[in-house]
Amino acid sequence: MTLSQTDVQKIFNPVHVAVIGVSTGDYKFGGTSFLMKLQEGGFPGILYPINPKAQEIRGLKAYPDLKSLPVVPDLAIVCVAARLVPGILEDCASIGLLHVHILTSGFRESGLEEGKLLEEQIVAIAKDKGLKVIGPNCMGPYCPSAGLTAWGAIPGLSGSVGIISQSGGLTQRLTEYTSSLGIGVDKAVSFGNAAVLDSTDFLEILAEDKDIRVIAMYLESVKDARKLLQIAKAANQKKPVILWKGGESQAGAATAASHTGAMSGSQKLWQAFYRQTGVTRVRSMNECVDAIMAFSLLTAPAGHGVFLIGGGGGNSVANSDTFNRQGFEVPPLSEPTMDFLSRSVPTAGSIAGNPLDMWRTFIDADYLAQVLELGYKDSAISIIVVDRLIPRMAYHFPDLADPTPETIAYLKNRQIVKPTVFTIDSDGGDPELADMGARLRAKFCRAGIPAFPSARRAARALRHLYHYHTRQKRSD
Amino acid sequence: MTLSQTDVQKIFNPVHVAVIGVSTGDYKFGGTSFLMKLQEGGFPGILYPINPKAQEIRGLKAYPDLKSLPVVPDLAIVCVAARLVPGILEDCASIGLLHVHILTSGFRESGLEEGKLLEEQIVAIAKDKGLKVIGPNCMGPYCPSAGLTAWGAIPGLSGSVGIISQSGGLTQRLTEYTSSLGIGVDKAVSFGNAAVLDSTDFLEILAEDKDIRVIAMYLESVKDARKLLQIAKAANQKKPVILWKGGESQAGAATAASHTGAMSGSQKLWQAFYRQTGVTRVRSMNECVDAIMAFSLLTAPAGHGVFLIGGGGGNSVANSDTFNRQGFEVPPLSEPTMDFLSRSVPTAGSIAGNPLDMWRTFIDADYLAQVLELGYKDSAISIIVVDRLIPRMAYHFPDLADPTPETIAYLKNRQIVKPTVFTIDSDGGDPELADMGARLRAKFCRAGIPAFPSARRAARALRHLYHYHTRQKRSD
Repeated sequence: MTLSQTDVQKIFNPVHVAVIGVSTGDYKFGGTSFLMKLQEGGFPGILYPINPKAQEIRGLKAYPDLKSLPVVPDLAIVCVAARLVPGILEDCASIGLLHVHILTSGFRESGLEEGKLLEEQIVAIAKDKGLKVIGPNCMGPYCPSAGLTAWGAIPGLSGSVGIISQSGGLTQRLTEYTSSLGIGVDKAVSFGNAAVLDSTDFLEILAEDKDIRVIAMYLESVKDARKLLQIAKAANQKKPVILWKGGESQAGAATAASHTGAMSGSQKLWQAFYRQTGVTRVRSMNECVDAIMAFSLLTAPAGHGVFLIGGGGGNSVANSDTFNRQGFEVPPLSEPTMDFLSRSVPTAGSIAGNPLDMWRTFIDADYLAQVLELGYKDSAISIIVVDRLIPRMAYHFPDLADPTPETIAYLKNRQIVKPTVFTIDSDGGDPELADMGARLRAKFCRAGIPAFPSARRAARALRHLYHYHTRQKRSD
Repeated sequence: MTLSQTDVQKIFNPVHVAVIGVSTGDYKFGGTSFLMKLQEGGFPGILYPINPKAQEIRGLKAYPDLKSLPVVPDLAIVCVAARLVPGILEDCASIGLLHVHILTSGFRESGLEEGKLLEEQIVAIAKDKGLKVIGPNCMGPYCPSAGLTAWGAIPGLSGSVGIISQSGGLTQRLTEYTSSLGIGVDKAVSFGNAAVLDSTDFLEILAEDKDIRVIAMYLESVKDARKLLQIAKAANQKKPVILWKGGESQAGAATAASHTGAMSGSQKLWQAFYRQTGVTRVRSMNECVDAIMAFSLLTAPAGHGVFLIGGGGGNSVANSDTFNRQGFEVPPLSEPTMDFLSRSVPTAGSIAGNPLDMWRTFIDADYLAQVLELGYKDSAISIIVVDRLIPRMAYHFPDLADPTPETIAYLKNRQIVKPTVFTIDSDGGDPELADMGARLRAKFCRAGIPAFPSARRAARALRHLYHYHTRQKRSD
């Protein structure tokens, strides 16, 4: 099924939205939750709660059924019990309401014959009446710029990321996570069992969408592997496509069958998929968000030479190992850089070189800026990583001034020609430390400067960035 | 050089400590920092600051030189400039002060001829006079039960972990990290350039130490690989030995040469080392602490079947993948367990099985206890992992009561027969979330229940635990 621009408009930017199955009581889940969250998020369109027994729900006029509505809504959000869903779909079709998100669970994924039959009914009705059905068993569309934020980060942050996912929970988390880091979402969709609309339908439209620069997907199944391969390959040539495949392992695949009723496909098939499409392979929420951040905020690196700036000898050794393991070089610096460093770095207790082990980079924003300038001019260097070593600071120098605002101002004013990222490792069970680290990380990220919670995660995200652009160059 | 029990006593449990090279001014680094921190940490012995120009420093009587002291100190902490160190060592020997920690840097690791010669002088004096020298270029011994905490977590938490490390910074961090998680350290030593005493000397004594149950090492170099192999193999049969080898990669090895003047040895050599000794291989601070936590708090698992308890469909799929990838099984549950679950778990929106996707486990401590009891009785299950899913809670159910105290009470009162751990993933750039997650994690850990910040890190730590005990059983 190909989605038209009108379909995209109705699904992601609806004005009139019917929520079918909203409780009148205190029950705050399902349809009620969707209605509440849309109100909280400031949805600018008109909401129509449907409940045969209510006059008014949460300050809104309620309607007994779809036929009683004064308009044909753009989008229906169906939250009634599974056995009632086919009837509601018939009602939708009868008034010409063609765009339907089914929140309800209890279909094929239940493993029960009854659920399987109900899902087959949904597919048959959709086919017969031309309904564009999202789900069932999913959270549906999400679009902060349209105020369509019934779940996830509310009201959400509008930006240039597109998300296509079979898991409602993981999609919620993704929107919250990226939003906290100052990275906005243009369109996200959780599509669950994929009974009618599948990943390929959404990927096709997001690939063409000029507002979207990076696409992240979480998939548990695929109906037409060849089609996904073709569409993903084409999309990835236009913009980075990141795929987290849930159910890669045997146990994961078995769980996926209970989650979205999905057959996961073999590991070999997916390996071939990544190889042939060039799609970026991630395996966890953190890796997915780290890659989104790198692709959203950084330009293409010219090479794989990394300049590691930080403090601490063991830390410098460990960071060299980490970047080397991810395929990066930590090359010797050029003569002008070394001249400056050997003049300014003491021989005892520091290391003048790459990595640079020099505490002053940590507390003196001007000095750090001088070192960064040298890195930007150094032909051996394509990427710069600055470590912030929060943990020791927290214990040993709590009173020092924080040079972060100056550093952020410097980086924002300069036209940065080489990817520059920060690492702020604040893990360690100490809540105060975690809090300091998270705040510092958020400061950088919200200013558009990627900051990762460990060298390993920075190196992995930069590897994804480097590989994507290397492949793009080769295929030019 | 073999250390005797008297040496151990003098190094880790000294009563009289001379700090040589303490400033009288505002300068707070080097010897002054050591003196200050020992005072702050409540060192119960007697401190002797040495400074030729001072009468009193920080409320303590100062002495012009070692010869003027009223007693022979147990331990000297040498903080004077590198070129003065050989003279100080001669002074130590002349009064019979044989245990010396050299904080000072600027020796072999500087890469300069002068530094190399100075280090050779140190070695020669130590050999000639029988000095037990720790360092140079290191933080020296640390022992919370003796109040010897001049660095790291101060005053520190006494416990059963032993740490042997060439990096001062990483050792500080390790003691802070474990201490924050409620895991105490018995003895730690940062030994830098290893000019005289080497890792093997410390490993030998920590292996025999009845107060130590787990040993963690960070090494950049080794002087006698065959000796280390023999000692590590024997030590690892008595208690788990964890090794983080800094400088595994080419770039890391080059950095290690500038850090501790060390030649790192080939990767192949180290692979053979791990295989032959059974020592647990870790590659980062987080992995090291996670392994320490698992070995310190958990008993041997009988098998590799894991019961994953949590909520969220996509999350359950992802966790299955994660544990499968680390070599664990996520097996079907026994009939009594499934009977209970199919009665209590709704068919729509949840998954009754392994993994268990059931929100009630999250908010209802009694229900979780019932599920855990079934897991403890289930013969397919050897390990239980409970996910806490902090991130969605923070956004969607901020008002729910926290069942953590009841859950901790239940686990502490029960004699736990199967390793049981929690995962609390609070990463995501949102400082409030990070704070909530870190606090929750600390609550569990400080109660002696391991809690990890991601499923991946839990799985990796449990894999180390499982492999260690499997090897132990085979060699019995």
